[in-house]
Amino acid sequence: MWRLADLAEAIEAELLGDANARVSGVATLERADSHHLSFLSNPRYRPQLIKTKAGAVIVANADREGTQVPRLIVNNPYASYARAAQLLHPEKRPAAGIHPSAVIDPSAEIAANCSIGAHSSVGAHTRLSAGVVIGAGVRIGSGVLIGTDTRLHDNATIYDDCSIGQRCILHSGVVIGADGFGMAWSGSSWIKIPQIGRVLIGDDVEVGANTTIDRGALDDTVIEEGVKLDNLIQIGHNVRIGAHTVIAGCTGISGSTHIGRACRIGGGVGIVGHVEICDGTTVSGFSLITKSITEPGVYTSSIPSQPHRTWMHTLAALRSLPELSNTIHALKRQYNDTTEDGQS
Amino acid sequence: MWRLADLAEAIEAELLGDANARVSGVATLERADSHHLSFLSNPRYRPQLIKTKAGAVIVANADREGTQVPRLIVNNPYASYARAAQLLHPEKRPAAGIHPSAVIDPSAEIAANCSIGAHSSVGAHTRLSAGVVIGAGVRIGSGVLIGTDTRLHDNATIYDDCSIGQRCILHSGVVIGADGFGMAWSGSSWIKIPQIGRVLIGDDVEVGANTTIDRGALDDTVIEEGVKLDNLIQIGHNVRIGAHTVIAGCTGISGSTHIGRACRIGGGVGIVGHVEICDGTTVSGFSLITKSITEPGVYTSSIPSQPHRTWMHTLAALRSLPELSNTIHALKRQYNDTTEDGQS
Amino acid sequence: MWRLADLAEAIEAELLGDANARVSGVATLERADSHHLSFLSNPRYRPQLIKTKAGAVIVANADREGTQVPRLIVNNPYASYARAAQLLHPEKRPAAGIHPSAVIDPSAEIAANCSIGAHSSVGAHTRLSAGVVIGAGVRIGSGVLIGTDTRLHDNATIYDDCSIGQRCILHSGVVIGADGFGMAWSGSSWIKIPQIGRVLIGDDVEVGANTTIDRGALDDTVIEEGVKLDNLIQIGHNVRIGAHTVIAGCTGISGSTHIGRACRIGGGVGIVGHVEICDGTTVSGFSLITKSITEPGVYTSSIPSQPHRTWMHTLAALRSLPELSNTIHALKRQYNDTTEDGQS
Repeated sequence: MWRLADLAEAIEAELLGDANARVSGVATLERADSHHLSFLSNPRYRPQLIKTKAGAVIVANADREGTQVPRLIVNNPYASYARAAQLLHPEKRPAAGIHPSAVIDPSAEIAANCSIGAHSSVGAHTRLSAGVVIGAGVRIGSGVLIGTDTRLHDNATIYDDCSIGQRCILHSGVVIGADGFGMAWSGSSWIKIPQIGRVLIGDDVEVGANTTIDRGALDDTVIEEGVKLDNLIQIGHNVRIGAHTVIAGCTGISGSTHIGRACRIGGGVGIVGHVEICDGTTVSGFSLITKSITEPGVYTSSIPSQPHRTWMHTLAALRSLPELSNTIHALKRQYNDTTEDGQS
Repeated sequence: MWRLADLAEAIEAELLGDANARVSGVATLERADSHHLSFLSNPRYRPQLIKTKAGAVIVANADREGTQVPRLIVNNPYASYARAAQLLHPEKRPAAGIHPSAVIDPSAEIAANCSIGAHSSVGAHTRLSAGVVIGAGVRIGSGVLIGTDTRLHDNATIYDDCSIGQRCILHSGVVIGADGFGMAWSGSSWIKIPQIGRVLIGDDVEVGANTTIDRGALDDTVIEEGVKLDNLIQIGHNVRIGAHTVIAGCTGISGSTHIGRACRIGGGVGIVGHVEICDGTTVSGFSLITKSITEPGVYTSSIPSQPHRTWMHTLAALRSLPELSNTIHALKRQYNDTTEDGQS
Repeated sequence: MWRLADLAEAIEAELLGDANARVSGVATLERADSHHLSFLSNPRYRPQLIKTKAGAVIVANADREGTQVPRLIVNNPYASYARAAQLLHPEKRPAAGIHPSAVIDPSAEIAANCSIGAHSSVGAHTRLSAGVVIGAGVRIGSGVLIGTDTRLHDNATIYDDCSIGQRCILHSGVVIGADGFGMAWSGSSWIKIPQIGRVLIGDDVEVGANTTIDRGALDDTVIEEGVKLDNLIQIGHNVRIGAHTVIAGCTGISGSTHIGRACRIGGGVGIVGHVEICDGTTVSGFSLITKSITEPGVYTSSIPSQPHRTWMHTLAALRSLPELSNTIHALKRQYNDTTEDGQS
């Protein structure tokens, strides 16, 4: 339970209404009860603000009179809501200690207050900093560094020699540091190229479930601080992703591509290898990037569905487009000839 | 070994031929032996029906005279074949019992006849109903409910507070209940929004290998009864999938999207967030849905490959299409002007 | 440390320069030190060859005078580099032995020099050949065969009755042999079709992290020798992939499709079910294959992104293309009528 006055102070909000009212959790405007805090960020939900039964709401100054319930007035309601939600729903962290079934190499250094779950294993010379939380069934290779307060959820896997920053969250099933896809054709078969680089992950990075980040071939694969990756993303060897970039699910980034800072990459995107994407670039979901991008902006190549029959007509027309194009240019020439003849 | 008479009764088929003949397994028409049951569903395999060496076949009434081997006549040969195959190849389930290496929280409630494999872990206050089968290396968080006869294969992961129905099958590597991809931009970095909803999975749901279903942000992510999900699918937070909908592999569904009942979603599909897809909708593989669908039908935006050079011409023409379109409209205007002039 | 003379002999290169010089590792031309071996394969890096500080370089005959550092002259610098890198960076393999926390069925046959990591499990009647290395948390079902020197990385899963060849590498999170996506519609719900085939993987196959290969429905799913699969690939039931074919990440191949030998399939590709792709076919990344391919060549349907506004114009034009096509044909008819009239 938080007193509104305390919450307002914590998130630096102006409070309108009963300073002693208390809230114990967050909920949507529609579902909130008198013990919930809610928020308005997207204007399309404004009609719900009037009717909400929430105990308090976070709103922008423009909406300060949009309801009678206690209000926390802020500049960025969504960000302030995120902060308040973290206070009202603090992450549950298991107690410090190493489960007796975990297998820790004697040369590993585990800070005193770490928590390691059942059936996890930690390799030789690996170092876990203070406050690290390791779930159950997590595999950490040898020579790995894990920064303060980072959390690895159940069944995550980190290969040898990788490094994870502070306050990171790695979800279940992530695989960090598997071999990049590198091989040479001998003329009759593929020869594997040893992948001797590492994966280096900065501070405050979150990696979604079953996402894979390959180790570098020679140099390292680098994920800078504050990057947020959704589920089922593939990051190839020697990719670099700039700070605070976000990438949605099912996206694949091929080897040696560098993505700038604060980019927003949609879901289901493909980015070929060996290109550079400048800072602040947005890629729409389901689009393909085949060349470097040097101007920030939004880039797209996705095609929304149509009813099947309509799309089949469009597709047939698309396929006859080169021919159609020739017809038009011929017509234009003929027309110009005719009218010139007419004029002459 | 099943007597044909017994099998006919079990799948409610009319039997033509030796009632005492026996079959011990299923096989394709082409490969079947005298101890195999086979079936004809797709008419293109009709020539194989004449030549089959199967001990018996399941066919529709139209094919009752298509072979001399004993026949089981049914309305829907494929569905009846599925039922017969289940009888002839019953799922192998491990004996009841908890492997001594499993780690079960003392507050968990495990029904007497459950089976729990090696190195699995079950969290506090989790309840496993009768007949639940848990493989090896499975992670089940705290506060989880698992319904009767549900099976979790090796190395599956269920986060805290999620609920799985009866008779579900979750394959290896699935991750249920990881955090949804929710964050707010503060102006300089991303602030994580706690994901406090759950994942609720109905009865008779199957989830393919390495598929991920995120927990809800505030409300729950819901997978209704009878839904079948293939491998490597991403389901975002607060998605709802209606009963008996099937989704093929590598498809991604963004947050808060609601999919109706009995839909058929192809592989490699993308569906954006916050849309509604009505009951009975089919989405072709490799297509993108960006808006709500209110009429059942088939929706498509996929483009089949062509030889590279042909496609490059088509693509070049596509990119010059806006210009081409202007040329045509100009030509049309000019032409109309000319012919009007001619007529005046 | 390798003497250049020994290395030259091992990779069958002509040596120019100090035969007694030694190198201890590989690095890029740009980063290499005097103890590194580097290589030039892509001509665009030729300027770096002149400036490199490497202790030795592998080059083609055309570049034999492109630097003063000791040179190893070969026909295929990239393949020779791969071989040299394997010699300089031999894979670290754990010592033989079974970790005491592993759970091995008494009927399993484990060759004497295998290594099995912590918390792994091996089912009944499974056979591990000489030199097999099993990581930690690996799940191997019953009746599985694993060939000589094959390595399974942490948290990989192999279902019952599958077979893996010699010298294979399976990365973390792979799932081999989960049920194919097979079911029949009963009229009101889906009936599961038992998946009783296996997965058979040939020699020298590499499978990337979190890739899934489903078992066959009736017959087997087959991956022939020398196939290389990247991360997060989905291979449906009864697929066959020919020898030495490579497939990049995030690609999905639907059931019963057969892919030939030495094909190159890009990332993010979709291939529908029940088609045949001939030997030596290349599919560009992000393309869709919907029909059998009988002529080797490159096949493409991908569309590179444009600035969003440009693409929106293109897309609008694409959607009005059938109408536009009608306009053109009408114009052409009218024009021909007019000019014919003019001529008559």
